[in-house]
This record gives sequence, C-alpha cells and structure tokens, in this order.
Amino acid sequence: MPKVSQLHLDARRQEILAGARACFARHGYEGATVRRLEEETGLSRGAIFHHFRDKESLFLAVAEDDAAEMAAVVAEQGLVQVMRNLLDDEFSPEQAGWLGTQLEVSRRLRTDKDFAARWAARSEAISQATHDRLTRQREAGVLREDVDLDTLQRFLELALDGLVLHLAMGRPAAKLGTVLDLVEEAVRRR
Amino acid sequence: MPKVSQLHLDARRQEILAGARACFARHGYEGATVRRLEEETGLSRGAIFHHFRDKESLFLAVAEDDAAEMAAVVAEQGLVQVMRNLLDDEFSPEQAGWLGTQLEVSRRLRTDKDFAARWAARSEAISQATHDRLTRQREAGVLREDVDLDTLQRFLELALDGLVLHLAMGRPAAKLGTVLDLVEEAVRRR
Repeated sequence: MPKVSQLHLDARRQEILAGARACFARHGYEGATVRRLEEETGLSRGAIFHHFRDKESLFLAVAEDDAAEMAAVVAEQGLVQVMRNLLDDEFSPEQAGWLGTQLEVSRRLRTDKDFAARWAARSEAISQATHDRLTRQREAGVLREDVDLDTLQRFLELALDGLVLHLAMGRPAAKLGTVLDLVEEAVRRR
Repeated sequence: MPKVSQLHLDARRQEILAGARACFARHGYEGATVRRLEEETGLSRGAIFHHFRDKESLFLAVAEDDAAEMAAVVAEQGLVQVMRNLLDDEFSPEQAGWLGTQLEVSRRLRTDKDFAARWAARSEAISQATHDRLTRQREAGVLREDVDLDTLQRFLELALDGLVLHLAMGRPAAKLGTVLDLVEEAVRRR
C-alpha cells in the first residue's frame, strides 16, 4: 500500500476546510450536518474526521484560518485595507463564506462559554497585528496625536465589525467606499 | 363569562413579547421552541398563538417593537445617542434581549429571503428617522458640509452595526465612550 504523503494530507485538509467553510456559511453551525459536510467536501465522514476531531474543531480550524489571513493583511496594509478588500470582493463565494463564518462566530461567542474561551486566543492575533501596525504608523507621524492608540484601534475595529454585519446581512456594499474614506480620515493627522 | 377587555389583551400581548424577546435572545430563533416560549412567558401555547399566528410572526413583532422604540430615540436624540444608550445599559437583561434579537435578525436576513422581505419595511422606519434628523441638523449648521448626508448616514449606521456586533459578542463596553466621541466628531462641523 502506498504511503500517504504529508503534501497529500495537507491538500486534503485544505479541501475539507474549503468545503466546510461554504457549508457553515450556507447552513449555519447547527445546520451544517455531517451529511451536508460530506456533500460539500465530496468526502466521507471518515475522511473528514480523520483530520478534525469533531465538528467544533473543524469550525474553529476554519475560523482560525480566516483570522490568520486577516492578520497578515492587517500587518501589511492595515485594517482599513481589510475593509476595502471586503467591499471589492462583495460577491465572491469566498467572501460569502468568510462573512458567514464571522457571524457564526459572533453567535456562538454569545451562546457558548467554552467556545468563547477557545476563540479568544485566535482573535488575539488580529488585534496584535492591528496594534503593531498602528504603533508603526504613529511613529511615522501618520496618525492624529490627540487621541490615544487604544481608542483609534477600537474605533477601527468598530468600523470593521459594522462592515461585517452590514455585508453579512446582504446589504449593498455600493457607496461604502466614501464611508471608509471618512473612517480613515478620522484616525489620520489633519 | 366576563368579556376580556382590550386593555387586558394589550397587556397580555406585551407580556408575551417580553418573554419571547428573552427566549429568542437566550436560545436563538431555532432554539426558541414552543415549550421554551411557554416557560419564558408563563403562558400556554394556546394563549401565545391566540395573539400571534406563528413563531415567525411573534419574532417579527418583537423585532418591530424594538425598531419602533429605536426610531423614536433617533428622532429625538439622534443615532449617536442610541449608541451611547447601548453602552449605558450594557448589563441590563432588556439590552441582552435586544442585542440577541438584532443578531438573530442579521442571521435570518442572510439565510431566509422571505424573512428579508418582511423585515425590509420595518427597518425602513429607523432609516427614515435618521435621515430626517440629519436633514434638520444640516439645516441647523451642526454637520460638516464637505460630505453628503447620505454618506454621513451610512457612516453612523456602520458604527451602530459595529456596536451591535461588538456588544452581542459579549465584548466589554468600557472605553467605547471615547470611540463614540470620535464617531460623533467625524460627522460634525469642525
């Protein structure tokens, strides 16, 4: 019997995550049954749960993947750019999946204390990336000086949360570009 | 047999709405079973569905009630005040209920087209109240002149959505007061 290579295992894991992301987005956490996860990934439950202990672990892996990607964009380009990217990708299936995951996370944070604890560590990465970037921007003299960094960070995070909820509800992204200009202007040096 | 007065019927209706709001907040829409609605309202399913055709109608009535109250505050005091009130009431059970309802609305807007259509008319009242107030404020010379009203309205609504998601996730309200100062400053005349 041929040995399954690590490369193959990683590819399979990515396949499962992509299918699961779409499935959670479409049906919500509770609605994403094992049967639906099988359909969406094209794999058997045996194959899926060879890679992930249970549905909760699978969901957290999806959310963790998204958080890592977002932290990378924040580090390079800042939180406002994350928001602008959300507007540009409005109709992509990937984005629909991402938004769905975010809302599911929000809902489970509210209703499930254990989940909240497991999630805290993961969301910390985005927060840290934002803090680091704002610190660099302040040193570069780009930011307004009359408001502390902590408040500027919370303000940007509030705008991002608002955008997530707005788009996740299916409301139009059109005309939000100028709104993000306002958001950006509010944190910059005049 | 004594005739049931309109006053009594209205009071009963309010009782059901209060219990249902708590129940939807705690368990989500799907989780708010008829049995749980009975427990939370202290009334039988017969009594509940004498007043509301079905669970969806009950949920929409809760959401409509919330929207009407919010539109009234917007008309009197503006959208930023709605946000400040949310911070003040952070730990009240009423607020937990309201936030829960908002998130459930968001989730159902995404997954249920029929619901989205029924909801659209209700959310219009808040939007209209915001528009009217901003128009009056612009006439009074309170708002900045270099950005159109539509954009200012979308900016404030984005902040509100962000606050709803933030609080609904159980994140702390502390320190958001200064963030709302930034929001308010961003729309005002310098």
